[in-house]
Amino acid sequence: MFSKETYVGRRKALKEKVGSGLLLFLGNNEVGMNYADNTYDFRQDSTFLYFFGQAYAGLNAIIDIDNDREIIFGDELTIDDIVWMGTQPTLHEKAARAGVTDVRPSADLEKYLAAAKSKGQTIHYLPPYRPAHNLALQSLLGIKPGAEQPSIPMIRAIVDLRNHKTAEEIEEIEKACNVTADMHITAIKMLRPGMRECEISAAIEEVAQAAGMRLSFPTIATVNGQTLHNHYHGNICKPGQMLLVDAGAETEMGYAGDMSSTICVDPKFTTRQKEIYDIQVASHLAAVDALRPGVPFKDVYELSCRVVCEGLKNLGIMKGDPAEAVEAGAHAMFYPCGLGHMMGLDVHDMENLGEVWVGYDGQPKSTQFGRKSLRLARPLEPGFVHTIEPGIYFIPELIDLWRSQHKFEDFINYAEVEKWRDFTGLRNEEDYLITETGARRLGKKIPLTTEEVEAMR
Amino acid sequence: MFSKETYVGRRKALKEKVGSGLLLFLGNNEVGMNYADNTYDFRQDSTFLYFFGQAYAGLNAIIDIDNDREIIFGDELTIDDIVWMGTQPTLHEKAARAGVTDVRPSADLEKYLAAAKSKGQTIHYLPPYRPAHNLALQSLLGIKPGAEQPSIPMIRAIVDLRNHKTAEEIEEIEKACNVTADMHITAIKMLRPGMRECEISAAIEEVAQAAGMRLSFPTIATVNGQTLHNHYHGNICKPGQMLLVDAGAETEMGYAGDMSSTICVDPKFTTRQKEIYDIQVASHLAAVDALRPGVPFKDVYELSCRVVCEGLKNLGIMKGDPAEAVEAGAHAMFYPCGLGHMMGLDVHDMENLGEVWVGYDGQPKSTQFGRKSLRLARPLEPGFVHTIEPGIYFIPELIDLWRSQHKFEDFINYAEVEKWRDFTGLRNEEDYLITETGARRLGKKIPLTTEEVEAMR
Repeated sequence: MFSKETYVGRRKALKEKVGSGLLLFLGNNEVGMNYADNTYDFRQDSTFLYFFGQAYAGLNAIIDIDNDREIIFGDELTIDDIVWMGTQPTLHEKAARAGVTDVRPSADLEKYLAAAKSKGQTIHYLPPYRPAHNLALQSLLGIKPGAEQPSIPMIRAIVDLRNHKTAEEIEEIEKACNVTADMHITAIKMLRPGMRECEISAAIEEVAQAAGMRLSFPTIATVNGQTLHNHYHGNICKPGQMLLVDAGAETEMGYAGDMSSTICVDPKFTTRQKEIYDIQVASHLAAVDALRPGVPFKDVYELSCRVVCEGLKNLGIMKGDPAEAVEAGAHAMFYPCGLGHMMGLDVHDMENLGEVWVGYDGQPKSTQFGRKSLRLARPLEPGFVHTIEPGIYFIPELIDLWRSQHKFEDFINYAEVEKWRDFTGLRNEEDYLITETGARRLGKKIPLTTEEVEAMR
Repeated sequence: MFSKETYVGRRKALKEKVGSGLLLFLGNNEVGMNYADNTYDFRQDSTFLYFFGQAYAGLNAIIDIDNDREIIFGDELTIDDIVWMGTQPTLHEKAARAGVTDVRPSADLEKYLAAAKSKGQTIHYLPPYRPAHNLALQSLLGIKPGAEQPSIPMIRAIVDLRNHKTAEEIEEIEKACNVTADMHITAIKMLRPGMRECEISAAIEEVAQAAGMRLSFPTIATVNGQTLHNHYHGNICKPGQMLLVDAGAETEMGYAGDMSSTICVDPKFTTRQKEIYDIQVASHLAAVDALRPGVPFKDVYELSCRVVCEGLKNLGIMKGDPAEAVEAGAHAMFYPCGLGHMMGLDVHDMENLGEVWVGYDGQPKSTQFGRKSLRLARPLEPGFVHTIEPGIYFIPELIDLWRSQHKFEDFINYAEVEKWRDFTGLRNEEDYLITETGARRLGKKIPLTTEEVEAMR
């Protein structure tokens, strides 16, 4: 945890921004995998971590702005809890670390909320993203699952705070990024033909664990990089293939790193692989070069798309005007994802609060295939931390679908595309902090170009 | 998956046992860690796996006994699903592998159930163990969360089938046990003073992953073995300490292994450690020796407790008659857990269906501290697969509590106990199959005695 002043200050800022009402924070509970007591690794809700710092299951909290109260609700451990799960600090001790002195039994939360409702207080709460949240809102506030109306003022205030990373947060994120880089360097150095994807993913996870961290998201380590979030690790890495690795570490406090690399299974990339790889690197570097306060990230995305289209046009895969192709959405055949996303206490920071608030400042998102997956579009501001991760993918199912629909025939040379349909896909990803004057890469450098990857192999 | 005949046969047997009504099977969904799309590793419900074999999220199924229908409900992938998560077989293809030909869209399940209810059919369902199950039962059947009334006939029939492992299941479990043994052997061989617990837990997980398996439960690798389910891995393993490892692998089909070992951080155990360790081994071997069909596991547990009490009496830690001490529950100060549990598609097999049905055949459980944690008590039958895992623990919080309460002063020599309060704890664990004539250990042997552990170090 940070010092208690950090949490006190964050709550004070939040109270000022929202102004009135009662803010309800649902902490996370354990989740059983195949029965209640065989639990997944506990992950606290990130907003709860941000304002209360408590990485323990079974807690909830309120900030009652109208009555100037901050309360953590929870229950002390029983002797059975201690025998099976070990001791913990008392609730008072835990809360004190975040500057909260008022702790009450869990059972009191419902009563407190009922009294607040009866007094006509506005009760603010966040969007539920786990079924347990729906159940809690139903039992605490009588809201039918699916009929929740999360508080926009609470969301906007939290997003504004969490989007602007402080120096101590950046330091923590950089710790995650350094271990993330080590995870990728390990994969790049160890990959050999004949290895199974799961050997790589296991070694990557070991790096995180041995550093006292855990994964910020499920590792991607796949020879089928054309599937953007491919978590299958059962293939053997064969000569001539590329392994796409997307993996990140998360610090004990919950801050994430997130990087990707694409590695040749052989000591060198093939000429064909380099042709596509170089386009992706050019797109990546053009994007990085454009990062500075005031620049809408949407523009950086459009730029990265145009670079991809230009490169693919040079190879005869695309045709026509690159800017028009991007405008129409034809690039999404090969680049169906966004350029990057905010990163902090969540690897896709605050995705649970709504991308429109986090990455679009409330402006609507495009519904166009590809463009709709852009998670960040707003003008950049100092303190924003985000990824840069353009990619180029040949997705056979998408090729077949669009070809059958005669889609974008002015921009896509389907006859040529067919020659690449088994190429799979690639991306590289780095993490950036927007500074007062530009941007700074976070964490150690990992290989970005084919030459850099080959040199490390 | 097994051949489709296995699943067809299991469902046929279940239908015959339950006799009438409609059986509802809720498959599991993905669970978001810190937002909906950052999901934990998907784990299908084990009963769903047992009868339908489908390790995919978002499926439900029914067996309508009255109308002789078996239906899997789910939705086909969209192009967005394929781009992000990859292709899958169609629902028809998936279902056919389990011998099910009737597949319908998810949205049809509610209508099917409503029609069944209106016709007066009995709808059988299982106990919810994830909040998503409570929500599903509420939306599908109008049952208020917490007011569920799971079907005892359905539970009993499933328990009877799943408790008796077939030859192909035993083969699968043994695969898990062999990898589980490798995980322990890796830990025993690599442990050195100065290593962090997380290095051991990471290496253990790597063995499972590299074998194409995953963990059957969160790994315990702790120098504080007195906490029975200690998942903290941040300590350094110091000279003079012991590392308690409890870890297991799970096959792709979902079958579990579960073993424990206690390893000296130094090349050898201390005399003091051996004194307690030898008692635990004696208890373990006495229990194994007693395993055969017809013997109530409760009796084997009582035997293992008496051996522990006798040993502790010889050390002056306990006093009085060991059998009377066990009867009174005094042994639970040092042995507060059960002797073992059923193991199969769940590491604590069917714990979600209720231990009373699985391990007690419907008979009530003791409420006595320690004895209440015995998960298996019923007479053993051929085909049962269970663990053997007595342990001896010195739990400072429990010592202090009972001492202050003057509990069992006839059996516990508190003055002597104080000299051992920092001993921590130890256990060894193996997996056994009850055969027609006795019992067979499953999987490779891992070191059990101090000599065996030292020889492997």
